[in-house]
Amino acid sequence: MRFDTPVKLSELATLTGTRVLGDGSRLVSGINEIHKVEEGDITFVDHPKYYEKALHSAASFVIINKEVEVPEGKALLFAEDPFSVYITIVKKFRIFEKSEQAISPLSKIGAGTILQPGVFVGHHVTIGKNCLIHPNVTIYDHTIIGDDVVIHAGTVIGSDAFYFKRRPEGYDKMVSCGRVIIGNRVEIGASCTIDKGVSGDTIIGDGTKMDNMIHIGHDTVIGKNCLFAAQVGIAGVVTIEDDVILWGQVGVQKDLTIGKGAVVLGQSGVPKSIEGGKTYFGSPTQEAREKMKELAFVKQLPEIIEKLKR
Amino acid sequence: MRFDTPVKLSELATLTGTRVLGDGSRLVSGINEIHKVEEGDITFVDHPKYYEKALHSAASFVIINKEVEVPEGKALLFAEDPFSVYITIVKKFRIFEKSEQAISPLSKIGAGTILQPGVFVGHHVTIGKNCLIHPNVTIYDHTIIGDDVVIHAGTVIGSDAFYFKRRPEGYDKMVSCGRVIIGNRVEIGASCTIDKGVSGDTIIGDGTKMDNMIHIGHDTVIGKNCLFAAQVGIAGVVTIEDDVILWGQVGVQKDLTIGKGAVVLGQSGVPKSIEGGKTYFGSPTQEAREKMKELAFVKQLPEIIEKLKR
Amino acid sequence: MRFDTPVKLSELATLTGTRVLGDGSRLVSGINEIHKVEEGDITFVDHPKYYEKALHSAASFVIINKEVEVPEGKALLFAEDPFSVYITIVKKFRIFEKSEQAISPLSKIGAGTILQPGVFVGHHVTIGKNCLIHPNVTIYDHTIIGDDVVIHAGTVIGSDAFYFKRRPEGYDKMVSCGRVIIGNRVEIGASCTIDKGVSGDTIIGDGTKMDNMIHIGHDTVIGKNCLFAAQVGIAGVVTIEDDVILWGQVGVQKDLTIGKGAVVLGQSGVPKSIEGGKTYFGSPTQEAREKMKELAFVKQLPEIIEKLKR
Repeated sequence: MRFDTPVKLSELATLTGTRVLGDGSRLVSGINEIHKVEEGDITFVDHPKYYEKALHSAASFVIINKEVEVPEGKALLFAEDPFSVYITIVKKFRIFEKSEQAISPLSKIGAGTILQPGVFVGHHVTIGKNCLIHPNVTIYDHTIIGDDVVIHAGTVIGSDAFYFKRRPEGYDKMVSCGRVIIGNRVEIGASCTIDKGVSGDTIIGDGTKMDNMIHIGHDTVIGKNCLFAAQVGIAGVVTIEDDVILWGQVGVQKDLTIGKGAVVLGQSGVPKSIEGGKTYFGSPTQEAREKMKELAFVKQLPEIIEKLKR
Repeated sequence: MRFDTPVKLSELATLTGTRVLGDGSRLVSGINEIHKVEEGDITFVDHPKYYEKALHSAASFVIINKEVEVPEGKALLFAEDPFSVYITIVKKFRIFEKSEQAISPLSKIGAGTILQPGVFVGHHVTIGKNCLIHPNVTIYDHTIIGDDVVIHAGTVIGSDAFYFKRRPEGYDKMVSCGRVIIGNRVEIGASCTIDKGVSGDTIIGDGTKMDNMIHIGHDTVIGKNCLFAAQVGIAGVVTIEDDVILWGQVGVQKDLTIGKGAVVLGQSGVPKSIEGGKTYFGSPTQEAREKMKELAFVKQLPEIIEKLKR
Repeated sequence: MRFDTPVKLSELATLTGTRVLGDGSRLVSGINEIHKVEEGDITFVDHPKYYEKALHSAASFVIINKEVEVPEGKALLFAEDPFSVYITIVKKFRIFEKSEQAISPLSKIGAGTILQPGVFVGHHVTIGKNCLIHPNVTIYDHTIIGDDVVIHAGTVIGSDAFYFKRRPEGYDKMVSCGRVIIGNRVEIGASCTIDKGVSGDTIIGDGTKMDNMIHIGHDTVIGKNCLFAAQVGIAGVVTIEDDVILWGQVGVQKDLTIGKGAVVLGQSGVPKSIEGGKTYFGSPTQEAREKMKELAFVKQLPEIIEKLKR
């Protein structure tokens, strides 16, 4: 997330009761989770395993729970609990505001776009031209939707990332400040849910078509002209390239890539990255031809074992 | 879909800029996709593989992209792109109209029927007597619902078929003009989605009971007194006969039949037609007893392989 | 379900046209299904297989279709069809009332709680402090929600149990009179469905976090600090102990227990009780390590069979 205007690091230190290591007069332009950082961003790290990654990331500022040497070109905030400090900053700059009306006057709706009864449009939403949003759809704050988009009834765009930190006493919530961005000519079926990014964006590429009851996790980026059948579930931080086809009830685990033009058959589970241009089946997925062969061999097992006994 | 009044073939030719082969003065009574055609209908075909099927179907009129001899008793519309011509006709005769109110005054609600707050009822809907429609349910235009039906919150009835034609530049949408027809004493759980037929009807038979989050595809016909547990997904153009039981998270592929009284156990995937009166398990499904035996053999594999090595 | 004030057994006999066996002047304090009964309750039994269980249960009163000796300390109602008699009593004491408003004035909403547009709150609901209920959520009558709860858009709390009795002519519905009780600091994702108890309560423990599109069946009791990923489905009458983690698309069958701290990997199906503290995978589930080994052996099958042939 970009701040509307850059903020002095020392102001963030005062806001959060933390200590600056390095030059506190420098300007922070945004806040992002480690996998999305850019120059000018502040990020956080609280586990020794990731110290090096954070300190050498593109982020200019790091909230950290160890007093380390300040890397060249960076400045740090020292805090006992960097996760909480990060959340405090997010909440300060992306304040949740109750919606008094179903369609927020702070949002822009393009010409020719139809919003059916029961549609909710939160604050700071942009919807393009000639869209058709069917009844009882919910569009959370800050969502961006292109032109010629159809969204069927009951779908939810922009719900929070499912991202919690385990503490001894229970789970602590990561507050999402990212967005959902939907391209042109996208069609989304009924009762789908698309979560916003944690600090970056969940993106659905131009021309992609989704059937009903599809779940898309936070920060997942989907290419152009993909086709997803009903009840597909895609976890967070997934990259799906163009022209991918996922059949019904496929599940995709987090933090992986599905290559361009891949086809995944119904009920398969994708546990790690798969190459484009091929067809996959099974949970966990294998190449479909291989999996089918395997299933045929398993069918022969009783006979084989019988033979072996003799 | 029947037209309200029959239309001259030559008028359709003028509307769509196509050329009549045969008698243009004949009356067209409806428009339907090839798997649903009746006498008097117009349909389309654009792939040489299906020319013969279309030209010898029950349809009286065919939109086609080849200049063929006109079959006895038929007339044709010649077009470069029959799919687009078909869509143009559908859109002309089934115009989408924005709903200004949550309950359309063009719909009929039977005596004793309760619509809870947040329910949407589109245009030209018929709901029978003594139904209970819970909050935030969406019922699209042209849906027909019988008597004594219960629909739980958030369910969507009549969303569009998931049916797209791949073009070099992306997907082109088939515009659905069919309906959903729900029988008497049906109960539908919360957050289900039932798609309308492409040109025919999606039908749920009398007395069928569905749990939550069930997806039913376009043109699927479900018999009487079926029982579907939560998160079942059924693709389009499926026939499910009476008394079928599908347990939780079962997936059913398109264009197949499940015979009367069949039982499919949880998480199974049905890839082709299965006979009635039997119990099935697995993805892809086998008879349950067979599948269980197979699973038991697989469990013995490590031991068997160990023995073989010695 | 407790009655608001206890009712004489003879009054219930008059209401339902049944005959008292034993002391009709005794007071009935509540009505419950056999798996939830307490002293003072009335329950029903209609199958010889369960006569003994019902007659020796904690219930003080039993509706039964056989004239048996009245057990010590109990009284009976004799009826041809105990199921229907039970339903008649439930309907009398838990009357469904249409909601004229989206937020019932008979419900209590705690300080600091935000209800976004399109939220439905039925009668006799209690919501605690500082909750955030996102748009188009449906909360049925009699639900109880704790403090600091977040519920995302489109979720349905308190829909009916999926519980039907097969009759020769079709299914007869068990009328649910139970509730949903949600603890403090629970977070529920978008488009989830949580069914009410049949006569008892469906319970979500403090600090439990659920992703989108999760289905929870009637009378299921979930512990504290559990974590469920998207599209998980849990049937009725399940006990899930504290700190359980279920990954995406897991299915859990009815009437079983998942022990404290168990982890079930994505797309697994849990068919019977599993011990806590372990990790599981597969449909049906096995311990994950075992299942992985099995999958590796299956992969070797083609090679092994080839060798055997030589």
